[in-house]
Order: sequence, then C-alpha cells, then structure tokens
Amino acid sequence: MRITSLHNALVKHARKLRDKGYRDTTALFLIEGFRELSRAHTQGIALAHLFFCPECFLGSNEGKLVDALNQQGVILIQCSEEVFAKLSYRDRPDGLLAIAYQWKLEVDTLLAQAPEHACCIVTEAIEKPGNLGSILRSADAAGVLCCLLANSCTDMYNPNVVRASVGALFTVPVAQGSTEEILHTLRRHRFRILATTPHAVTSYHHLDLTGRIALVVGAEQYGLSETWLQAAELSARIPMYGQVDSLNVAVATTLVLYEIMRQNEIVNTNNRGGHA
Amino acid sequence: MRITSLHNALVKHARKLRDKGYRDTTALFLIEGFRELSRAHTQGIALAHLFFCPECFLGSNEGKLVDALNQQGVILIQCSEEVFAKLSYRDRPDGLLAIAYQWKLEVDTLLAQAPEHACCIVTEAIEKPGNLGSILRSADAAGVLCCLLANSCTDMYNPNVVRASVGALFTVPVAQGSTEEILHTLRRHRFRILATTPHAVTSYHHLDLTGRIALVVGAEQYGLSETWLQAAELSARIPMYGQVDSLNVAVATTLVLYEIMRQNEIVNTNNRGGHA
Repeated sequence: MRITSLHNALVKHARKLRDKGYRDTTALFLIEGFRELSRAHTQGIALAHLFFCPECFLGSNEGKLVDALNQQGVILIQCSEEVFAKLSYRDRPDGLLAIAYQWKLEVDTLLAQAPEHACCIVTEAIEKPGNLGSILRSADAAGVLCCLLANSCTDMYNPNVVRASVGALFTVPVAQGSTEEILHTLRRHRFRILATTPHAVTSYHHLDLTGRIALVVGAEQYGLSETWLQAAELSARIPMYGQVDSLNVAVATTLVLYEIMRQNEIVNTNNRGGHA
Repeated sequence: MRITSLHNALVKHARKLRDKGYRDTTALFLIEGFRELSRAHTQGIALAHLFFCPECFLGSNEGKLVDALNQQGVILIQCSEEVFAKLSYRDRPDGLLAIAYQWKLEVDTLLAQAPEHACCIVTEAIEKPGNLGSILRSADAAGVLCCLLANSCTDMYNPNVVRASVGALFTVPVAQGSTEEILHTLRRHRFRILATTPHAVTSYHHLDLTGRIALVVGAEQYGLSETWLQAAELSARIPMYGQVDSLNVAVATTLVLYEIMRQNEIVNTNNRGGHA
C-alpha cells in the first residue's frame, strides 16, 4: 500500500492519535523512530500499521526492520515525503512511524512475585513528558521492578513520553492507576512507601532503604499530595547546599533510586558472601 | 513609558534577543518571570529594561518587585496584553520580562581560590537547553564551585536555559570557553579531570572523588570527545542494570555530583572530628 494524499483516512487516524482522548478510545498509540521501534520489536510490542518513507531513512538498517515487521504481519504503508512529514512529530524524521496496541500490566501479580529487595517507582501527577521519559530511562537503568503512574496528567502513551524514554517505555513494566488503587496494591504486598520531600529530616543517604520499597515522587510544581505524604513510612530529604530550592524531578528520583540500588547491592553481596 | 504598538523598536529589540547572534553582538539577554527575576535581583544581575503588564500578573508580589527594580534605575516599560504576549516566550506569561546585561566570570581567580575539596562541572557541547538548565539547578543544589560550558552548542544566555534553570544561572558561577582554555585552566589549578563514560571500568561509587575535581560530561547523543577522555585522570561508569544504554545527561551528572559531595562531607566531618 502506498499513500501520497494528505487526506487519506489512515493518515488522519494516525494524526488523531496525538490526542489522549482518541488514544483512550482506540487503545492505540504512536511509536516513531528507528531506535524506538527496534526496541518495541525486541520487546514484543504489537504493532498494527507501519508507515515508512525510504527517502527519509537516516541509516542503513531501516529496511531490515521494515522486513522483520512485515513478516510479523504488521501492515506496511509506504508514504511520500510530504505525507510522512505530516505524520511525524519529530524535528528530524527518520522515515518510520507505527501505530501500536496499548497493553495492560498485571501489577498485582508482578508485586506478589517481587523479590525480597525490590523497588517500584510511583510518580504522582507528573506533567512534562520529558520528565516522565527521563524517569523511565532511569527506571530501566536501575533495574526497578515497575513504574506506576498515579493520577497521571501525562499518560504513558503520549508521543513525547515514548520519545523521551528512548524506548524504556517498552523495557520497564509500566502501569497507570488512581492513587487509591496503587496505594492499596503496594500495601497488600508489603511495600514500604518512601516519600521524597524537602520537609523530611533525614537525608536519603542515611536511611535503610533495603527490602520492598516504593519510591514516590510528586509533580514538578507542587510536589507530593497529602495522601502520599501521610501514607509514607519513610521520608527522605535530598541535601541542598545552594539557593535554588528544588531539583528537576527526574534528577531527584534517580538520586534516591540509585541509593536504593546501591544498598540492595551491598546487602546481596553480603548475603552471597555469608553463604559462600 | 507605555507601549501598545507591536512595531515599537524596543519590542523588536527584545524579540531579536531570542537569537544567539544578536545576544552576542549586544551582550544582552532576556529574563522572564517573577521567580527568575526575583532571583536575578537578589543576585545583583544588572537589568537594562523591564517590560511589565499588570493584567498578566499571576500573584500579588509582582508590583513590589517592579518598584524595587525601578528604584535601582531599571527603565520600566508598561505593555498592553497584546504586546506582552508578543514579547513572552512562555506558555503562561506572568507579566514580567527584562533585558539584562551579560557578565563574565573570572574563572582563573575563582579556581585559584578554590578550597582543598572543591568540584567544578564541565559540560561539553550540551544541545538541549532543558538539560543545561537542569544541570545548573543540580549544580546549585550540590553547591559546586562553578559550571564551565566547553564548546557550547547552546549558550548560557539562551532564554530556555534561563527558564529551565529556574534562576540557578544567577546563583551558580557559570562561564563559557573552548575545551582547550578550560582544560588549561583546570590543569593550572590542579583539578583532577573525572570523565563519566560507559567504557569506564570502575563504578562512580568505588572511586575516591575527594580533592579538587572537575566532573566532565558530554553531549546527549555522542558523549565526551576524545580530548576530554584522554585528559581524564579518573573515569567513572554509572552501573546500568537494564536494557536502555544511557541515562539523561542531567540525571547522570547529578548522580556523580552527589557522590562527590557525599564523599567530601564525610572527609570534612572526619577532619573536624580529628581536630576537635
């Protein structure tokens, strides 16, 4: 199939997927770019349609990915440059954009099977897709169990989250839910809630962060809601030596996350040592 | 003075300051927003003109700031909402935007007077203003000596750096220069160069990062240049437990930065203990 008309129904359908409402209704979303689509393919994310424009390819492996997706039954649609420019939401399009199926993570099952030392991230009402994407990258890098988006302003399927996560959306287990649902599930599986807040007394370096931990971080502007602050068994402060009163939320999240991972690594090493 | 015409010469002058070339020529730049201007005022940043639009004020303290700046000799220019909308580079303008004078930091003097344990950040060729702004926020939070921008693609006076730094541009000593200049200055004042790279063998947690350290981080896409990698006395890796191969650059910078600060704090505490 080949499209050269900007008024094609499939082009309009893909364009509408930039809107959350339409994504929710159709349970579909967009993935653009060679790197992101390669990762989605490796992770077994199901795709419905792939728009491609060979004139826009930036590397030499795009053709192989197109073939591999074709063999999986993804419907291929070749586009003119003009059409692809209309579909793309990037500055430098690389000629690949897909419509993918959303999925639903079984959070309860995942948490039930969590190891003794495990970390979840909970983000509350994060607004900027770039921040959510960075948090997902960090979640992947630190090897967290999952990332739970409570009362999300920006949904996980937002095209800019997909882009900023550089594909970590497909490698980290991610789910969305209300604060109440998520809190309930964490409690049921004996995760301790760790809130990061400037009002905490103890620095994150000086807390015991081993065991099952859910690290909760709040919105860019207003921080965590009272619900999470009151639910937290642990509160950590990030030491601030300057005059600006806060860090970028993805930065703050990762600082605490890596401290949790560092402590778990020490515990695990000691345990292995003990049994040797 | 009151402006209602979109074609006013001062309005055009301010608009042109969005361009790096015009900023370089005039040695001026833009600061928008109550929070940023308050911080600039506190830090003694010299302003030439202040455009204000009372109809756009979001809080109740804007008037006081306008008065304070007026008393310092800043030229006030009241604008209609239409004119202010043209000047503003934000989604939600709060009715304050100033033209400010650029400054030049004496890096050599600053480094010469550095304490025994001190940390500089060097960023090489960072592209995204949001990342540079986040790094400045982290630099302020961690209390670094200064932030040096080597071969900068995005200059420190870019309006989006000002915005993303939430005013940290005014609280952290910042300077720009070529890689050669900066490396030479760091060497003269006996700063060890610490490169963060995925090719390093040792995790940042396991290095001695006390003393005079310059933490060098590279561009979003390509990382550090050979020049910095070869100049580095120390190389640190950030452990990655997942499938995505890199962290956001501001996130990676802050992780190592806070480890340096943690180690310095321990050393300083021990030293104080030793002399007690």
